[in-house]
Amino acid sequence: MAINISILGSTGSIGTQTLSVVDEFKNSINVVGLAAGESIDKVREQTRKYHPKAVSVKKEEDAKLIRSKKGLRVGWGDSGNCMVATLRGVDKVVIATPGLAGIKPTLAAIKAKKTIALATKEVLVAAGDLVTREAKNHKVEIVPIDSEHSAIFQSLGNRSIDEVKRVIITASGGPFRGKKPKDLKNIKVEQALAHPNWKMGRKITIDSATLMNKGFEVIEAMWLFGVPLSKIKVVVHPQSVIHSAVEFIDGSIIAQIGPSDMRLPIQYALFYPGKRKENSFKKFSFSDYSNLSFEEPDIATFRCLGLAYKAIKEGKTAPAVLTAANDVAVEAFLEEKLAFHKIPDVIESVLSRHSPKRYKSLEEILAVDSWARDEALKFAIKFGKR
Amino acid sequence: MAINISILGSTGSIGTQTLSVVDEFKNSINVVGLAAGESIDKVREQTRKYHPKAVSVKKEEDAKLIRSKKGLRVGWGDSGNCMVATLRGVDKVVIATPGLAGIKPTLAAIKAKKTIALATKEVLVAAGDLVTREAKNHKVEIVPIDSEHSAIFQSLGNRSIDEVKRVIITASGGPFRGKKPKDLKNIKVEQALAHPNWKMGRKITIDSATLMNKGFEVIEAMWLFGVPLSKIKVVVHPQSVIHSAVEFIDGSIIAQIGPSDMRLPIQYALFYPGKRKENSFKKFSFSDYSNLSFEEPDIATFRCLGLAYKAIKEGKTAPAVLTAANDVAVEAFLEEKLAFHKIPDVIESVLSRHSPKRYKSLEEILAVDSWARDEALKFAIKFGKR
Repeated sequence: MAINISILGSTGSIGTQTLSVVDEFKNSINVVGLAAGESIDKVREQTRKYHPKAVSVKKEEDAKLIRSKKGLRVGWGDSGNCMVATLRGVDKVVIATPGLAGIKPTLAAIKAKKTIALATKEVLVAAGDLVTREAKNHKVEIVPIDSEHSAIFQSLGNRSIDEVKRVIITASGGPFRGKKPKDLKNIKVEQALAHPNWKMGRKITIDSATLMNKGFEVIEAMWLFGVPLSKIKVVVHPQSVIHSAVEFIDGSIIAQIGPSDMRLPIQYALFYPGKRKENSFKKFSFSDYSNLSFEEPDIATFRCLGLAYKAIKEGKTAPAVLTAANDVAVEAFLEEKLAFHKIPDVIESVLSRHSPKRYKSLEEILAVDSWARDEALKFAIKFGKR
Repeated sequence: MAINISILGSTGSIGTQTLSVVDEFKNSINVVGLAAGESIDKVREQTRKYHPKAVSVKKEEDAKLIRSKKGLRVGWGDSGNCMVATLRGVDKVVIATPGLAGIKPTLAAIKAKKTIALATKEVLVAAGDLVTREAKNHKVEIVPIDSEHSAIFQSLGNRSIDEVKRVIITASGGPFRGKKPKDLKNIKVEQALAHPNWKMGRKITIDSATLMNKGFEVIEAMWLFGVPLSKIKVVVHPQSVIHSAVEFIDGSIIAQIGPSDMRLPIQYALFYPGKRKENSFKKFSFSDYSNLSFEEPDIATFRCLGLAYKAIKEGKTAPAVLTAANDVAVEAFLEEKLAFHKIPDVIESVLSRHSPKRYKSLEEILAVDSWARDEALKFAIKFGKR
């Protein structure tokens, strides 16, 4: 039986790769809903190709450019996202909307009992407590799309979390692995965008270069798998061949290995808990890798990872501040308004001015996010390109 | 609830390591039956320590040395082995009796509906067809103890075999990895017994040096997992960190990693399908391994692996001939009566004189085994230490 999906963030990196998985399994997956941002031409093209029943975009005026065909619901903004996330007949909702915008439709999809295939890190980093509580209350499963979390999910298999000694998250180390703090001055945008193993969006590529991405993944893993920070270990593994692993209490480690191709974890999430299916994607071969290496992460140089640990230990609203401040700092770097090595300074300054609070609603998170962005902007301007 | 086990081959390498797992989990595992060969002092000591309800040894006169305590059944030979393998109240039977002697009690245990924890390779190499058919008929599960097969079993998890593209069996390559045929002349027994990663019995250590052990493991994997030769790949991985893996049809590989400690797969088999349990054994750390490497096996040098493939392709009774001839050749090498590089010559000569036949009974296997041993002995004498 075919699987019916909605894709939120359909024109982004994960969204388009999800659609290429759909192309691979035309008869097994139906695209029922698509939600995009401002790439109107792209979403129109997707609409023509995949014939969804509903489409949503960011702005009302853009929505009008799509409203044309019979039998097609068109929405915009938060309400459009939520409409696409809760469509009748949809089994699974792929959440790949960048940033906090993913939280509201995720909560809506959970309430509508849709299985969540989650790519947007912010959903759990900023609002993990709220989202996982809602998922539990509605007996909805959150299946990760991130390659590391998919690897952990696959390695865990049908074993229970109380059999786990720790979760091992591998990190490529990014393009600046081995560098020292002084080497990180005068980094150019194109250098930071040159990730050694993965082709990803710009924002996440910078987060990989600072290792903040790994910090976010630690937070995500805590919520997804219900493990404390003490049970998560980050191991730098430059070849990105072991995508992550689970160490069980008996000393046995189960690891997931494969090519660096996001279509694999996407495919896994789309078909889960069904059987694995053959595809035409390039396969992994051990003989292509004569050496796999491992090392400890250098937190003294890659301070963003240390800041993530700090935010985790503070808990409550601190991770939301972490991601908001990081967003602004990375954006400023990409616009060449902030030096690469000043990204952690901005985040640290904002974190140090925040008193973490318990939160119960999305509104509280959004308020904290907004405050942290304003603060981060001030600090980004202050630190600049020095 | 405690697990009740019998151990066949209790004084050997796997047997004593099984008992050290029992020591680790005193309250969770009861030793109900022990069967040994001729190490009478050792089995008497084990009997005093573990208080089994039944003990068996190889010879009748040795059995008399044990017959002393009330409430202890004592047996000998095949019937003693089968008595220990079928004891009332036993859940699981560890088969670690060397050679073909393991087949009869395995079949008896299967008929008595005991779960099999299998270490003795010959059981499946020589009689895989018979044993797996019986296991299927009696709905009995065979759980592997061999580290490679345990790794595959653990990596497969709850996935079905039709999701498997291939099984990847790793090989350390043994002490002579990288050597060429001319380097294998004048190999001394102690050189061949110096395995780089695993502490094992003498026979299996020589089989690891010739790579015949890997050939046996391929045959075992075929029977255990129901996969053809074309779906099994041997990869040389000198560090023995990845114990083996499963490549699924979607391109994802799940691998089992851990310390080179046989107690781990033994523990897994004893508690399977129950939860994993914490132990005091030394744990694995990625930071102890800065490099993992992989290479193709060199079948031109390690001809025994090629002979195993040949026997697999011939099928029927050929693998039984393979293991019988290998047994005799390795024994002759260990007694310094046959040169190391002549081991494959003996096996090849015997295989080439055999016309593989379908078999239906253990007796047919035993007849072939006996014939192959006689032949192998003749060739071992003929080739000698030249």
